[in-house]
Formats: sequence, C-alpha cells, structure tokens
Amino acid sequence: MIVKVKEPLASEYPLIKPKQILFTYFHFAASKELTHAMIESKATCIAYETVELADRSLPLLTPMSEVAGRMAIQVGAYFLGKPQGGKGKMPGGVPGVKPANVLILGGGVVGTQAARMAAGLGANVTIMDTNLARLRYLSDVMPANVHTQYSTSHAIQEHLPHVDLIVGAVLLHGIKAPHLIKKEDLRSMQPGTVLVDVAVDQGGCIETCHPTTHEDPVYEVDGILHYCVANMPGAVPQTSTMALTQATLPYVLLLANQGYQDACSNNEALNKGLTIYDGKLYHPGLAAAFSL
Amino acid sequence: MIVKVKEPLASEYPLIKPKQILFTYFHFAASKELTHAMIESKATCIAYETVELADRSLPLLTPMSEVAGRMAIQVGAYFLGKPQGGKGKMPGGVPGVKPANVLILGGGVVGTQAARMAAGLGANVTIMDTNLARLRYLSDVMPANVHTQYSTSHAIQEHLPHVDLIVGAVLLHGIKAPHLIKKEDLRSMQPGTVLVDVAVDQGGCIETCHPTTHEDPVYEVDGILHYCVANMPGAVPQTSTMALTQATLPYVLLLANQGYQDACSNNEALNKGLTIYDGKLYHPGLAAAFSL
Amino acid sequence: MIVKVKEPLASEYPLIKPKQILFTYFHFAASKELTHAMIESKATCIAYETVELADRSLPLLTPMSEVAGRMAIQVGAYFLGKPQGGKGKMPGGVPGVKPANVLILGGGVVGTQAARMAAGLGANVTIMDTNLARLRYLSDVMPANVHTQYSTSHAIQEHLPHVDLIVGAVLLHGIKAPHLIKKEDLRSMQPGTVLVDVAVDQGGCIETCHPTTHEDPVYEVDGILHYCVANMPGAVPQTSTMALTQATLPYVLLLANQGYQDACSNNEALNKGLTIYDGKLYHPGLAAAFSL
Amino acid sequence: MIVKVKEPLASEYPLIKPKQILFTYFHFAASKELTHAMIESKATCIAYETVELADRSLPLLTPMSEVAGRMAIQVGAYFLGKPQGGKGKMPGGVPGVKPANVLILGGGVVGTQAARMAAGLGANVTIMDTNLARLRYLSDVMPANVHTQYSTSHAIQEHLPHVDLIVGAVLLHGIKAPHLIKKEDLRSMQPGTVLVDVAVDQGGCIETCHPTTHEDPVYEVDGILHYCVANMPGAVPQTSTMALTQATLPYVLLLANQGYQDACSNNEALNKGLTIYDGKLYHPGLAAAFSL
Amino acid sequence: MIVKVKEPLASEYPLIKPKQILFTYFHFAASKELTHAMIESKATCIAYETVELADRSLPLLTPMSEVAGRMAIQVGAYFLGKPQGGKGKMPGGVPGVKPANVLILGGGVVGTQAARMAAGLGANVTIMDTNLARLRYLSDVMPANVHTQYSTSHAIQEHLPHVDLIVGAVLLHGIKAPHLIKKEDLRSMQPGTVLVDVAVDQGGCIETCHPTTHEDPVYEVDGILHYCVANMPGAVPQTSTMALTQATLPYVLLLANQGYQDACSNNEALNKGLTIYDGKLYHPGLAAAFSL
Amino acid sequence: MIVKVKEPLASEYPLIKPKQILFTYFHFAASKELTHAMIESKATCIAYETVELADRSLPLLTPMSEVAGRMAIQVGAYFLGKPQGGKGKMPGGVPGVKPANVLILGGGVVGTQAARMAAGLGANVTIMDTNLARLRYLSDVMPANVHTQYSTSHAIQEHLPHVDLIVGAVLLHGIKAPHLIKKEDLRSMQPGTVLVDVAVDQGGCIETCHPTTHEDPVYEVDGILHYCVANMPGAVPQTSTMALTQATLPYVLLLANQGYQDACSNNEALNKGLTIYDGKLYHPGLAAAFSL
Repeated sequence: MIVKVKEPLASEYPLIKPKQILFTYFHFAASKELTHAMIESKATCIAYETVELADRSLPLLTPMSEVAGRMAIQVGAYFLGKPQGGKGKMPGGVPGVKPANVLILGGGVVGTQAARMAAGLGANVTIMDTNLARLRYLSDVMPANVHTQYSTSHAIQEHLPHVDLIVGAVLLHGIKAPHLIKKEDLRSMQPGTVLVDVAVDQGGCIETCHPTTHEDPVYEVDGILHYCVANMPGAVPQTSTMALTQATLPYVLLLANQGYQDACSNNEALNKGLTIYDGKLYHPGLAAAFSL
Repeated sequence: MIVKVKEPLASEYPLIKPKQILFTYFHFAASKELTHAMIESKATCIAYETVELADRSLPLLTPMSEVAGRMAIQVGAYFLGKPQGGKGKMPGGVPGVKPANVLILGGGVVGTQAARMAAGLGANVTIMDTNLARLRYLSDVMPANVHTQYSTSHAIQEHLPHVDLIVGAVLLHGIKAPHLIKKEDLRSMQPGTVLVDVAVDQGGCIETCHPTTHEDPVYEVDGILHYCVANMPGAVPQTSTMALTQATLPYVLLLANQGYQDACSNNEALNKGLTIYDGKLYHPGLAAAFSL
Repeated sequence: MIVKVKEPLASEYPLIKPKQILFTYFHFAASKELTHAMIESKATCIAYETVELADRSLPLLTPMSEVAGRMAIQVGAYFLGKPQGGKGKMPGGVPGVKPANVLILGGGVVGTQAARMAAGLGANVTIMDTNLARLRYLSDVMPANVHTQYSTSHAIQEHLPHVDLIVGAVLLHGIKAPHLIKKEDLRSMQPGTVLVDVAVDQGGCIETCHPTTHEDPVYEVDGILHYCVANMPGAVPQTSTMALTQATLPYVLLLANQGYQDACSNNEALNKGLTIYDGKLYHPGLAAAFSL
Repeated sequence: MIVKVKEPLASEYPLIKPKQILFTYFHFAASKELTHAMIESKATCIAYETVELADRSLPLLTPMSEVAGRMAIQVGAYFLGKPQGGKGKMPGGVPGVKPANVLILGGGVVGTQAARMAAGLGANVTIMDTNLARLRYLSDVMPANVHTQYSTSHAIQEHLPHVDLIVGAVLLHGIKAPHLIKKEDLRSMQPGTVLVDVAVDQGGCIETCHPTTHEDPVYEVDGILHYCVANMPGAVPQTSTMALTQATLPYVLLLANQGYQDACSNNEALNKGLTIYDGKLYHPGLAAAFSL
Repeated sequence: MIVKVKEPLASEYPLIKPKQILFTYFHFAASKELTHAMIESKATCIAYETVELADRSLPLLTPMSEVAGRMAIQVGAYFLGKPQGGKGKMPGGVPGVKPANVLILGGGVVGTQAARMAAGLGANVTIMDTNLARLRYLSDVMPANVHTQYSTSHAIQEHLPHVDLIVGAVLLHGIKAPHLIKKEDLRSMQPGTVLVDVAVDQGGCIETCHPTTHEDPVYEVDGILHYCVANMPGAVPQTSTMALTQATLPYVLLLANQGYQDACSNNEALNKGLTIYDGKLYHPGLAAAFSL
Repeated sequence: MIVKVKEPLASEYPLIKPKQILFTYFHFAASKELTHAMIESKATCIAYETVELADRSLPLLTPMSEVAGRMAIQVGAYFLGKPQGGKGKMPGGVPGVKPANVLILGGGVVGTQAARMAAGLGANVTIMDTNLARLRYLSDVMPANVHTQYSTSHAIQEHLPHVDLIVGAVLLHGIKAPHLIKKEDLRSMQPGTVLVDVAVDQGGCIETCHPTTHEDPVYEVDGILHYCVANMPGAVPQTSTMALTQATLPYVLLLANQGYQDACSNNEALNKGLTIYDGKLYHPGLAAAFSL
C-alpha cells in the first residue's frame, strides 16, 4: 500500500484508463497538473481526503491522524536526544529527576493520541484546545499527568520558556491552520527544544515549519529542532496499512458491489469524495481554484 | 480518646498512683516538670512515641503521621481559598484551567499520604526526598501526576516562584528537622501561597512555622499563609482513634496478659518505650538532658 | 472579575448608560427592581445564565458548576472535622481504617466533578442520577471507588444511616429542583454528617438548605451540618476567573467584532441570552413573571 | 503433574524404593500411616510444604496460594448465582446497580490475589488483616475499590449483615488458623451469602467449613453457601503446573546436580523440607506428634 | 420478577382480560400461538423488547445486555476449569504465568461489559468490532490490557489457535447476527476452549451454539465447550431486577399517570413497543410474518 | 558531565597527580593499561561501579540503569520504523490495530523501567525473570498490559515468532550474563524485529550483540536489527547528569568532609569502591586478573 500518493510523473498518466475507478488520496488542490491529467484520462476519481461523514469527521483521514499523533511523541522522544540535536533529556525523567514538559497544541485526533503517548512515557503533559467540551472529555479519559488548558496566545507564550517538546496538532477543516508559534517565539525557548508539526502538509501551525522527509527529517532554526515529515505514517506501514484499509474497506465493498454511481448515490459520505468523472471536475472549490 | 496528651497541670498529678501503668504519648523531653512528677508518682510510664521496631520505624507514631499527611492536603486546599487568606485557587484547577503546583518536602509516611491526596484532587505534585530508594518506590506506586525529585536546596528554590501549596513533611529520627525553607525564601513565593508544616511540634522544617491550634490554625508572614496546628489528628477523632488504637492494641494486650515487666522483656519494641519505673528514669538521653 | 454580580444598589444604576452592552450574570428573575432599572437604563443586557447551546447545555454556567462541584468535596472534607462541627472523620480514612461514605445526588457537571474529587481523597463514593445513559458513561470513566446507582427515594433513604457527606448536585433546567432530602430525613443520619448543597441558589435539593456566605458558611439543623454558600466559586477567583473568561471569550469577541445585533442574529446561543434592549424586555418568561 | 498428593493406598507403597528421592507435597502430619510407610521404604522424602526461606516464606506453597486466592473469587462469583444456591447477585453490579460487598479475611498471598480479582469484577472490597504494615503496602498497590481494615472480631461482625461474599484467607505458619467466623455468626448474614474458605485443609478460618471436592464443591449451613474445596488449584492444571514447576525447578536442579545431601547442606531452605532419610524421621515436630 | 417471560401455556390465557395492559417482554415473533392468544384476549400489549429511543438504542434491553455481558466472563472463567470441561486455565494466570487470551466479538453493550470484566481478572483481552468510532471510544476508556481490533474473518481466524475464551456479543438490530465462527473453525482451537454466546436467543454469532438452560448450561462440540444459556440474567435476579425495573420505571409511571393511549402518543419510544390493542396487531413486521 | 569515562590516552596520565582523589567510573577490569597507569600515578581511585550497599545493590550504577531502561523503549520504538530498518510498526498500534509485542528479558532496574515505558506506549508487554518474588512485586505495581512470566529457554523461544521488540536487560552481579538469545534464534524471528541489548558492555545477553556508538547505533544480522550502544545514557545528559550526581552527592560530601581514609572507614559501601591508593591495588579480583 502506498499511504500517500506521490505526485505522479506525466509519463505515468497513460496508465490511467477511461472508466477506471481511482479511490485513493489525491490532494488535487496541491497540483493543477494532476487535476488536469485526471480529467483528461476520463477516469473516475474518488478522493480519500474528502470523504466526509454527517458529523463532519473525515473517516479516511482519521486513521492516519492517529498514527501520526502517536508517532509524534516517539520521534519527539528520539530527537530530544543530544546526538540528534535535542536538549538531551528524557520525556519521563527517571525516579528523582523531573520529567520533561510536553505541550500539545490541539485536542483532536492527533493531539489526543500524542498526549496519551507522552503521558505513557511519564512526561508532564499539557494539551490545549479552544473547544472546552473537548477538553472536558479529555479530562475524563486522559491519564493524570495530562493537564488540559484552554488555548490562547498568552497561555502558549507562558509555556515556551519551560517546554521541552511541542507537538503541533491543529488541523482546521478545509482552511489553513493559524501559526500558533511564530518565528520570534523560538527565542523564548531553550536551545534543543523539539518541535513536531504533524499538520505540516496543510501548512502547519508553527511558522518555521516546512515539510521534510523520512530521509532527512529534521532541521534547526535558532537552535530549535524542527521535525516536519509530511508523511509520518509512511514510516510504520504495518500499522498504517491495517489502520487505513480497515477504514476504506466498507467503501471499497460498496464500490465493488454497487458500482460507483449507485454507491455514491446511496452513501453521502462517499459522494463527497467523488471529484472527477466523465471527464469533468465535480468539486466547486477545486473548479474555482483552477478556473475550470 | 485524647490523641496527644496535653501537659498535665500540677494538680492533676495526685491522680497518678504508684504501680499504675501509664501507656500513652508523654513527650517527656518537652517538660522537665512532667518528667519529675512522673518519677515521683512511682508510676510506670511507657511512652508511645519511643516504642520502636527493629527497622527503626515507630509503630505508634505512624498512624498519626498517616492522618496528618492526608489532612495536610485537605486543610491546604481549604486555606488556598481567598476568604481564608490563600491565593484563591483549586488544587486540581478545572478542565481547561491549569492545576495548582503542590510541593511535598519529605517522602516518608506523612509525605506519601499527602502526595496521594494532592494527586487525588488533580494537582501537579512534586515529592522530594534525599532517599533515592524511597523515591523509586514512590515512583512505582504513586499516581501519574506525582513527580519524584531529589531534594536539594537548589531544587526547592526553583519551585518556590511557581508553587501554590507546600507541605513540610520532614521528620528526622530523634533530631530536629533542618529548615528547608527559610524566612528569606518567603519572598520568592507569590502572596497567598499556603505552607502546612506537619512536623511543627518537632521543630518543623520551615523556619517561620510555630505551633498553632485548631481554634486559630493559621497566620500570615510576608503574605504567605502558615498552617501549623501541632495536633492535626485531633480534628478527626473518629479516624484517628481507630488508627491509633488498632496500633496500640497488640501492646495493650501484651501488658494486660503478661504484666509490664515480662511484656517489656519479651518485646524489644515495647521495651524501648519503657521510660520510668520504680521511681527512676530509664532513658539515657532524657537523664542527661535533665541531669537526672 | 466579579464572578457573580451582587444585586446593584439603586445609587449604582445611573452608572449604566443607554446603549451600553452589559454581558454578565444578571439573575433577573430574582429581582424585579434590577429588571426595571435595566429596562429604564436603555442598556442592552445579555445574561450569561441564559446563553444556551443547541444541546440545551449552558456554556457560561458549566465552568462555575465545575468549580463548585470540585469545591464541594474540599469544603466537605474540611467541615467533616470535629472542630468545624462535623463527625471528625477523613474522607479516605487511612490504611487500616475504613473510608467515609460520600453520596452525590446528581450525575451532571457538578456531581461528576464532586465524585472525582471524593474518589481522589479515597472515599467510598456513590453517585446517583435517574439518567441511566449518564450513569453508564460515568461508570466508564470514573475511578473504581465511585459506584453509580439509579436515584430513587428508597435508594437515598438506605444510604442515610451510613453516609458521612452528601453533595446536592441536582439542577433541573429552568425549574426548581425537587427536595430529595427532607427535614425529617435528617433524623436518619448520624450527628455531624455534612451536607453541601451546590444548587442552593436555585432552591437546592435539600429541604433544610438556605443560602449562606463565605463569611458564615455553615449552620446546623438537628445535628446535621449544612454548607450552602450560594457563590462557591467566589472563593477561588484565580481558578474561577480563568474558567469563566475562557468560556465567555468567544462571545465577547463576537460582540466586539459584530455589534450585539449581528452577533445575536448570527449566534443562536448568544441570542438566547439577549434579555433587554431598546428599553424593552425580550424574554417571555420574565415578562410574564413581572407583568411587563 | 499432581498438584497435591492424595493419601497413597497401602498397595502403592511398594512402588517406592530405597534411595529414591521423593520431592513433592506430603502433608505427613495428616497421616501417620503415610509417615510410617515412607520411613520403612527407606526413601528420601523432601516435603514441598516445609521448604522455607530465611524470611519464613514458603516458596513452594506460595504459587498454589496465588492460584487459590484468584480462584476464590471466580468460584465465589459463580456460586453467588441463584441456580447455584447464592443470592443471585453479581460482584460488580451493573451501571446504576450497587456492587456486591466482598470481605477478604487475611491480607497475605491468598487474600491479596482474591482482593485484586474481586476489585477487577467491580465489587466493593474490604481486605482485613492484623498486620498494619501489610495493610499499608496493600493500600499503596491495590485498586481504589479495595479498602483495607484492621481485623478485629467487632469489625468482622459489622460487615456480616451486608456482605455478599467472604473469602477466608488466613493461614498461620504451622498452627491452626483461628475461627474468625463462628457457626452463630451465620445468622447475621443474609441467606445466599457465599463463603469460600481457602485455608480449609489447614483447618480453615470459618468454623462451619469442612473440606469438599471439585465433584461436590458446596454445601449449605443455615442458608449460607459454603465452598470449601481442599485442592482448589487442581481445577486449573495448566496454570497451576506452570506456577508450581517454575517454583520447584531451581530445587530440582540442585538435587539433580548435587545429590540430596550436598543440595540440602548448601541450601538452607531445601534442608527444611528434608523430612525422612535413611529410614529415619528428621523433623522434631512430626517425631513428637507420632511418638517416633 | 420474571426476567424473561416463558411462553405461556394455553391454559394461562384466560387470566389475561380485555383492557388489561401488559407491559413486559413478549418476543411475539417466536410464537404465533402467543400472538394469536393476545390478539384474542383484547388486552393491550406493549413489548419491552421493541421500545426504542430516537438513537435506535433499546432502553429496556440494555440493562439485560449489561448483566449478560458481565456474566459471560464469570461463567467463562468457571467453565475454563478442568472439572467443568475447560482447559484448566485461569483468565489472569498468576504472577509469572501467562494470562489467558480472551476474545470478545462485538464492542456494543455486551462486549464492553465482558471486556471490562475479563480485563479485571487480568486476562489478555481483544475486543473486535467493525465500528471504528466505537473502538476508538473503547480505546479511550478501557483498561490497558484490552486491545481493540477491527473485526474481519481473517483477524478472527488468526486468534483461534491461541484463544482460551471467546464471548459472542454481536447483536444486530432486528436481523439475525452472522456466524462469525463456523463449525469448521472449532478445529483451529485447542480442546477445552470455552465459547459463551450471549446472543444465542437471537440466533447467536457462533454456528454451533444452540440455547441451553441454567440447569444444563454447557455442551461440547469437537472438544470445544459451549455455554449458551438463553436467559443468562435469570441467574442473578437481585442484580437483574434492579437493573430492569429502574429502566422500566419511567415508562410504568407514564402508563399509570396518562393511560396507554396518551402515554404512547406522547412518548415515541414507548409507542414503538405498542404491538397489540383493540384486538388488533399494530406491527407491520409481525403482521406480515404471521399473515395477519 | 562525562557519563562514562573513555579509556584515557597515555598522554593524559601525567595530568593525574599523586594524592589526587579520583571518584568516577573506571571499569579497570577492561583495561590493564589504565590500571597500571593509575597505580603508578599514586592517585587514590574510588570506582563508582564497585560502590555497593549492604543489600548488594550498586547505588552509583542504578541511576544509569534507570536511564538506559527507559531509553531502550524510546530507541526501540524509533528503530521499529521502516526507514530505520525495523518492521514498520508502532509499539501501541492504534485503535483497531493490534499493538506490538514487546519482550523484556530481566525484571531488575533496567527491565522494570523498560516495561513501564513500553506499557505507556500501549504495547503488549511481557517481562521475564527467574526471580519469582520480583515478578510478584512487578505484578503488583505494573500497568495491566505488562504480563510477568518466569524465564526459561522454552518460554523465550515461544515468544520469538511473534515478538516485535526485545530488550535485553539481564545484568548479573560481577559475572557475564548468559546468552538468552543465540545466533540461531534470530531465524525464528520476523525480519525487522528490533533487539536492544542494554547490558552489552558487560557482554550482553544476546549472542549477536556487540557494542555500538550513538554515531552508528544499529546493525543488522540475519534481518534482525541490533541496537547496542554501550553508553546509552550519554544521549540524554540533562537527565543522566541529574540522576547520577544526586546519587554520588552524599559520597562526594563524605569524601570532602572526612578525607578518603575516614570516609571509607566509616562507610562500608564507599569502601568497596576504593580500588587503588598509595600506589597499590586493593581489589582481590583485579589483582588476580592482572597478576598484581
């Protein structure tokens, strides 16, 4: 399985035949070229990332967010090591030595999984969100070393001088996440602090983050280590593939049993993913963006 | 039950008859008058507070320490209230609002019970001790929001500007506890911080603490609230009496069944409590102190 | 911040100017005088306590309920002390001594927070409600020493002879809570039992409760101690202010950015709080009550 | 594996040859016939049940106590069922229905394991012992629904009218356990209460208990159901065999590598199990008991 | 209380009078004779099992599912015993001995309660469902020894060679549950594995299951022990009666206060239970099934 | 801080002056050259690694073991990633996807810390030891997803085909640890399984392990990834330095206040670390080894 489709080379397009149904991640918005090629191929394109349930959750993105949220702490712990450029500190300290301070920005799927892992390693964890109802639920189910805090610019600033690891886990639906941490904020942090921005491929919520790869995952800005791999789940395919395919399976069965037209008519969530068919683009936002 | 014997008035001494066995808290070291009166009464005095097991634990002090340790947090939480003179903060905050910082000085019986209660109220708790083996055990059994830290003067100083409640729980065996917090340290704390010194009747581990009573439990020094009731367990007699009498019961049965001489001969722990009999003082330390 | 607005003196009314927007707690129903004064002032009055979300929750009351629920156990533990008039018992006992029995009437926001704190202190806790779905959720997320029980008059009666602390946490939406504990029930309890009625300012769920103040918080009826401070969160302003302002902030921004008319048009929850504007009362219930 | 040796028939004795080393459970004290036969066989008999470490623990009895303690709750839960003669109640109730009250007499290996299982099923558990140090440790490591209580006759009596399941887990070293529950106490309990006496083969701590078998495990006295299978671990051989053989393995290796004489000389614990060799009885207590 | 109505004998029908309101479990679909008799009796029949809330939950079946789910583990643990025909293994093992593997098919009410009990006994538990949102919630609230897994035929097969206890907890709304375990699958399991099919009276989710009784609860197929008592909650009437009557109470009060017509008009959930009145059958499915 | 002294170059020796007290890690046994140089320097050498308490614990090695045990899981999680050569699996899976299997060989300081971290990440953890008393304690204090198992060659073999991460945490006092996993065992494991041998610098307990460095930490043998950094704590100096210096502090004070002669006379533990003084080697084992 390819967890996230790389942008196809032009020479690959001929492989796509008319009437074929392509059901995968497309991220059309990021590539006009891909969009055009798919329209011309006359294939039917249903995009994982826009399949959406009635409660506005994205069932085919959630599993990847869970993986990425958990990984954020695993890589964060690793890169806090001195040889990797971090402070040289363990998330949980050891008995008699204070634990590290971990700050999670965002209490959604990514942030929740990250907070649980950080707590599991024994850190002193703060998870922030502006959704109080969500913070109340987290407060009911999280381990005792996870503290919930309403997110404001002021509250974030207060944490910076003491924090050891920050996970950016803000993903706003369809719009770019705000920069909760700006370039000038890096000066408030101690050298070797580690930032992991899970939402980096949607623009990220940390200004100084830009996408990196598993081959070269980190870089330093003003002494602060940035881990911003765009496709984090790609590193753990055994877990990611299971997580993703069991989420896509019901839709795949629907497509196989009913054909794409009936399947999309009968299933509102799937219908939201139907982007291109009959050589036309059926997605108002994209059409506008690409003037189609 | 009188949890801790008040210093008896001279007029009460005639009630004590020769050959009577008095098995209770005496705290002779604090009163030469009491010591003399008991010697003259020709009663046999076995002091709870010096009964000592082979592992140097004090089985008849431990239950009162457990009560006091747990109470320290209950009263600390109460006096953190603004109307009581505290900061006006809850130990556990609420969902979305950061919890208070609670610092426990000492990881023995008192400190352990205090830490558990503070954690139960949702606070961010640090428990300090210089005994690393003890911190390792606490780390095994305490809730996740209790962090263990090796106690040094420097480590304590670092906590002061952020701490909301400090519990003094240092009790050294037979010697006065050191002043871990000095008068000048109060300036590092925010006004309304609450100090509870459980060991105040052994001199306390906070310099500005002096014994108070349940009638008038707190006073302020430099904006910092001090709770220093000398006999904390006296406030919860239903709990304290059960806790104490089940600890004394085996010794009482021994005394009743064997007489004090055989009982003390046969039981080394009890023997250590035997202080006065036959009109003589049998305790080298006391004898020296009072030149007897 | 003033957590709850005191009834303004007549001489204060001139301070309110026409066109001013007052966004705060009003509790108009409790004061015809206040209502009239505000109508005449021509100010715009949006009442925190009637802002209501689509799921009928009250987002600007919830934070205060959380604070009060948690405080209920802190003050309950304190007043269980003998010097304060209670039984002289600790909520959690100590190792080897049975814990106290704590009964929480109501499994909503107040009761849930109270149950969690009581469990944290080691008590044997029962939380009652008639909403089985809620009890099932609590059963999923509460510590193991919280037992859920369907609330009936019979079930409550059975607890009374053994209970040490009762928290009244029943708040029915818009109507007076029933008296789950009546005056004659006090005879079934042991002297020194402590009652904390968090809903006392909506009439309370314990018949013998009437509002008290932080200055004089408790009184005794038939040997039973009543703690009924009407404005409990006022005692912990550092916690309460954070809790409240982060809940009001989004509405304040809305009002500031859009003006009250557009803000209330665009936000149904806020609109429910809009009570007085243009010198007129826009609230059917109040209008009827005051014949306006 | 035979978890516990049945008393051998006379006809089986010839199978035992001189010089053979028998390392197993013997329980000689219960059978003069067996003792004589073994002496005459000139075999070397090392009894599991008397191998004893320096701290007086019995390493080859502990695993069976662990199994029996855990099983006590499993069978207790089953026999609380109405069709089995119990009250018809579940240990943990269900959400909204109060849990059962489980009383564990004894905080040693058996009682600890029983308490943990009962807590796991959601019961309201009390564990009693007269060893306060042990209760303090249990209080540190047990789930929150296990309450520790100092054991006195009075304390036990208070529980009887409300208790649903009692586990007798008192095993005194080498002497018969006292009857903590007497025949007349059964009248204080509700019909269908279940008693499981794990120590029944050492005389038990419940007066009305006498050994039963897995074929016919329970009987009723005064409406109270008694489960008193003498060899409880025999029902779960996959678990028991692993538990026992990994405890005996180091001793077996010692015997195999060094011969019994050197093994017993070099290992004080094993030496305590050496009961018969060279046709003679080497155990003062047994010798006295059987006048040998 | 009769937890589940047995099929009435014809001779009992005369006891039912016209205009009587019968509010109980009927399970009409299973008996044409009962359906006819009730129609002819002219009684009003409201069936517990079809009362249904707006979220499609069945409020009068849920309590029985909770009881049955918890019981499934209690009986499973018992029948894992060798004398009962099981493997002779404890769910939680003991310290040093691996725990049993427990597989729960279905993450609804039954499966959740079963998983919690199995975890409480220390087993290594896997709970399977195809509803990922439900698995995510379970992952938030379940103990750490419960692992969630997406249910597929392949995933189930992989567990069979290692599993010790399987609980069938799949109940589909109104349709027969699929056979997740087929007869040929029994060969993949080890002899003495125990199957408990809680949904056996709706056809069960294990092919080889057929209803049994508390008198004769188990049978063996291909070495695998089957426990399939159709009315499990009947064994614990003290728990079941409380659980059921507190769920039916609000409806009973409605019927008593308003009469069945108004009650059913005003309460949509209750209305769904109204099956027969005025001598007519008001339930499309039943009518079709019985050609009425 | 230099956590572990590198073998000094000959040219560095002149820096060491007679009468100097060197109190640090030496690991003399590994270098005859170092031993000779120190003897000739006439310095006093007290070796951290041989300071030993009466209970045979090594107080100045324990903190480094704690750090290494916790790090073992952090690096194990990282190297399980596909880009790092591992299976591409997360220790805890995600909701709906099975967790990884983690096997910890050894239940001492290293193994205990490793097990706790692995459990915190949500893995299915087995911790093995041959000390049953230790396994019982771990069973009391570990999270529910840690299973204890008696260590035998057979038990280890059974885990290999299913295990994802193995931590070698066996350190025998003064003697080389046995090879619990041999080269041929690697064939039983799946490719990408990760081995972390924490005891590699004492010879390790995995045959194919040899020391690596933080610069080049892993290598592959037969498809199995080996992480064997000899000085793991060196990567987290902020944590390690605190952990180590608070353990050495009391000894440093003793040396400073009393001089090395009195300090070692008065403190038996410190005395065991005294290896070289007055130009002579005071350590029987070393003397024999180097024929001095």
